[in-house]
Amino acid sequence: MNITGELLINGSSHMGKDGHFQAIEAATGKHLPGTFGGATVEDLAQATEAAWKAFPIYRETNLEKRAAFLEKIAELIAATGDELIARTMAETGLPKARLEGERMRTVNQLKMFAREVRSAHFIDRRDDPADLNRKPQPKPGLIFRNIGIGPVAVFGASNFPYAFSVAGGDTAAALAAGCPVIVKAHPAHPGTSEVIGRCVQQAVAACHMPAGTFALLQTTEPEIAQKLVADPHIRAVGFTGSRKGGLVFMDIAAKRKQPIPVYAEMSSINPVLLLPGALEERGSEIGTSFINSLCMGAGQFCTNPGLVLAINGKGYDAFLNSAREATKAAVPQTMLTPNIAKAYRDGVERLENNAKVTTIARGKPGSEFECQAALFEVSASDFIKDHRLEEEVFGSSSLIVKCNDKHDLIKVLEALEGQLTIAIHLTNSDNALANELMPLLEIMAGRLLINGFGTGVEVSPAMVHGGPFPSTSDGRTTSVGTAAIYRFLRPICYQDFSENILPSLLK
Amino acid sequence: MNITGELLINGSSHMGKDGHFQAIEAATGKHLPGTFGGATVEDLAQATEAAWKAFPIYRETNLEKRAAFLEKIAELIAATGDELIARTMAETGLPKARLEGERMRTVNQLKMFAREVRSAHFIDRRDDPADLNRKPQPKPGLIFRNIGIGPVAVFGASNFPYAFSVAGGDTAAALAAGCPVIVKAHPAHPGTSEVIGRCVQQAVAACHMPAGTFALLQTTEPEIAQKLVADPHIRAVGFTGSRKGGLVFMDIAAKRKQPIPVYAEMSSINPVLLLPGALEERGSEIGTSFINSLCMGAGQFCTNPGLVLAINGKGYDAFLNSAREATKAAVPQTMLTPNIAKAYRDGVERLENNAKVTTIARGKPGSEFECQAALFEVSASDFIKDHRLEEEVFGSSSLIVKCNDKHDLIKVLEALEGQLTIAIHLTNSDNALANELMPLLEIMAGRLLINGFGTGVEVSPAMVHGGPFPSTSDGRTTSVGTAAIYRFLRPICYQDFSENILPSLLK
Repeated sequence: MNITGELLINGSSHMGKDGHFQAIEAATGKHLPGTFGGATVEDLAQATEAAWKAFPIYRETNLEKRAAFLEKIAELIAATGDELIARTMAETGLPKARLEGERMRTVNQLKMFAREVRSAHFIDRRDDPADLNRKPQPKPGLIFRNIGIGPVAVFGASNFPYAFSVAGGDTAAALAAGCPVIVKAHPAHPGTSEVIGRCVQQAVAACHMPAGTFALLQTTEPEIAQKLVADPHIRAVGFTGSRKGGLVFMDIAAKRKQPIPVYAEMSSINPVLLLPGALEERGSEIGTSFINSLCMGAGQFCTNPGLVLAINGKGYDAFLNSAREATKAAVPQTMLTPNIAKAYRDGVERLENNAKVTTIARGKPGSEFECQAALFEVSASDFIKDHRLEEEVFGSSSLIVKCNDKHDLIKVLEALEGQLTIAIHLTNSDNALANELMPLLEIMAGRLLINGFGTGVEVSPAMVHGGPFPSTSDGRTTSVGTAAIYRFLRPICYQDFSENILPSLLK
Repeated sequence: MNITGELLINGSSHMGKDGHFQAIEAATGKHLPGTFGGATVEDLAQATEAAWKAFPIYRETNLEKRAAFLEKIAELIAATGDELIARTMAETGLPKARLEGERMRTVNQLKMFAREVRSAHFIDRRDDPADLNRKPQPKPGLIFRNIGIGPVAVFGASNFPYAFSVAGGDTAAALAAGCPVIVKAHPAHPGTSEVIGRCVQQAVAACHMPAGTFALLQTTEPEIAQKLVADPHIRAVGFTGSRKGGLVFMDIAAKRKQPIPVYAEMSSINPVLLLPGALEERGSEIGTSFINSLCMGAGQFCTNPGLVLAINGKGYDAFLNSAREATKAAVPQTMLTPNIAKAYRDGVERLENNAKVTTIARGKPGSEFECQAALFEVSASDFIKDHRLEEEVFGSSSLIVKCNDKHDLIKVLEALEGQLTIAIHLTNSDNALANELMPLLEIMAGRLLINGFGTGVEVSPAMVHGGPFPSTSDGRTTSVGTAAIYRFLRPICYQDFSENILPSLLK
């Protein structure tokens, strides 16, 4: 493993000259070895021009070869060994087992898209043959297919250094769709990004793909990131991060001479509904499993259960007590970056200082780089009055909204913004209420789940990881699962083409 | 046939009170019988609230019943008789045969979507069964489906009073997808709109669909149209019209608290490429067929051939001569509205007054309400220097760009914006050049066609009527063909749902 701090562009690498930065050890705030050079506007132009040049060749690659290319990336990532895990642990503060699992998930995701490519399903080819004898007009011969939308800018996410980063979901989906990818590495894990980026670059060479098919840019300058979104050669954007960051990109993309789609995953508090029967039957058990989910990975998941809507009644106190005890017992965990740890403390402080909010419990305290779990409670009426209570606090903090009855619950739901997930805890006696709520829940979220929590996003063809604004910028798509490939495709129709001028993939 | 001038909202009708207007006879500029009441903001709210209330019921309708509903609309429209055709002829100036054909197309389009609904293909259901024994984590059970995005605002287009209007492509696709529809009638054919709207409203009642499934609003106020796009109950917009109008809607939609997709078809000049071999082989013949296509329907098609890119060489003069003669022989045709006729004259005048542009021929002159065909020529270098030459002139006006060689041709192509269609005229000796151009053409347009013209859009599963900005606001979709249904769908995933709480369509 060789971390040089270089940019990876058009099949080669060089040091960026627009300043330099070092990785930060999440657990200590200290610098880690290695200096990363920041990409200049020239580097950016070189990467997007190479991608543009690669695009017509890459999008027409034989599907078997394209699938083998994805598998080659998977193979090289799988072989990165313990050294990479150690580096990523240092950069992100995430534990070994989690990172090993996430790496395997990333490898499997690439393999899943390889299967999707081989299936040719996503091309959605449709043939309407000509009928020259049709009256009053002869019928033309039409062939429909989906093709890659163009070079895609992917922004690595801090919270998934493998699965939503350099070779994560958006990169795999875009490459599968036939689109070159330019990744802007997240500065929270630049060394990890370079190692994975080199795997992709090596696979490009080994599989004889055009050199411009992939590039990795390192930078800490927001301006470079914004210029990437504005670049005319970029035709779509994949982003996971803050609402503020996502909105900036959406705005830039909409104001381009040619607007482009932005797939930004931004902000979701993933409501958990506790229906009366479930609370009565197993309130205490739900309290424990809720806090387990909340504290997993220091709560740094997009699908973290940041809001609980519970109807007061039998079992509510049991739920609250067990959640309180589990929170108190929660051990501190290193957060992804010192900035995230600070934002978490600030968010928790805002809730603690809100006169309408009761602090139910705090977890065990830790260092300034660690997440101390936090559990709050507020009444439904106070929640509805104060929109700030709906703001995501990224980390192991959750707010229980105590509802008097189902009418309260519905009012709270109607006041909420779009979500990635909504979980419903129920038992048989709650089915009527669940059925009553379902039409409302369906239009609020991309995934509804029963008796579980949104954390743990299965990578499979039926997954939807997306949802109405502001959980994502575009609720018509998913970022996880095979359907993610449709983000990076557009339809085109060929009319009256003879065999010898049809694109090679249609021959 | 009874034209009352009323709005059709939530299963009943009443006169709008925000001013009133009359239809204009396209051929004379005089008022036609009937007074139409303008929708107030209260009418608008009533329509969108009814649509919102209808949405959870309508989107879950049994597919057989939904298909029968679409067929009922088709049946009622097919039965509108000669009286409607006469009214539409007066309102639009379009000839009888064209309108009869367009009405049949609209009927067939509804039937096509009924078949698509029955197929259930668009639901894209995916099941990933649970595996409780999987290690290290049990696998959840997932069901994926597409559901309607929400109530859709459809803006009737002036140039297709049936096929892109009240019960046109967007309405049919949205209803098929499970979305209620609110149509803002185009004031160029308000009587036609009411008659068709009553067919839809009657079908809603006959098929026992929720009353809010359909509404028709009449207005001449841009503010009401804009409020419709801004209404929180509206979740997608379908529009065919001017670039200016489309950009306003895109901007409003992006600035909403919850941004929504806008499918605006705006501006396309549909380049026609004349390659050297084709020119040499049949330059004269191409000239004639080009002008025939240009003058069809007074050139008032989104796919009208407004730009010809021809490589100078053998056959160019023959092409130019035959196009000149055909233009001179072109008879004047009534345009859709007096405003469109005036905008056409202004556009033609701008070209005539451009020092770099040569007027090749004008058609026979007519009244102030008629389109007088116009054919112009400019050099490739002058075209590239003057971006105004790329502006669409809606009507039978076209500009021939004379290219010295293929390099000129490519430079012109690279300077162009996104298009609905690009036509390539070629013969066997041009195949190498066509293959060289194809990767560039593919990213410029939604439909490529050989040895024809873009006018005449086949309604079939393989059609793409869409294209990169500014031909449409969103090149990821089509407005014609069965794939149009995907405009109004979004994916959702149900995790660990038992049979008794699954939505009825999934049971």
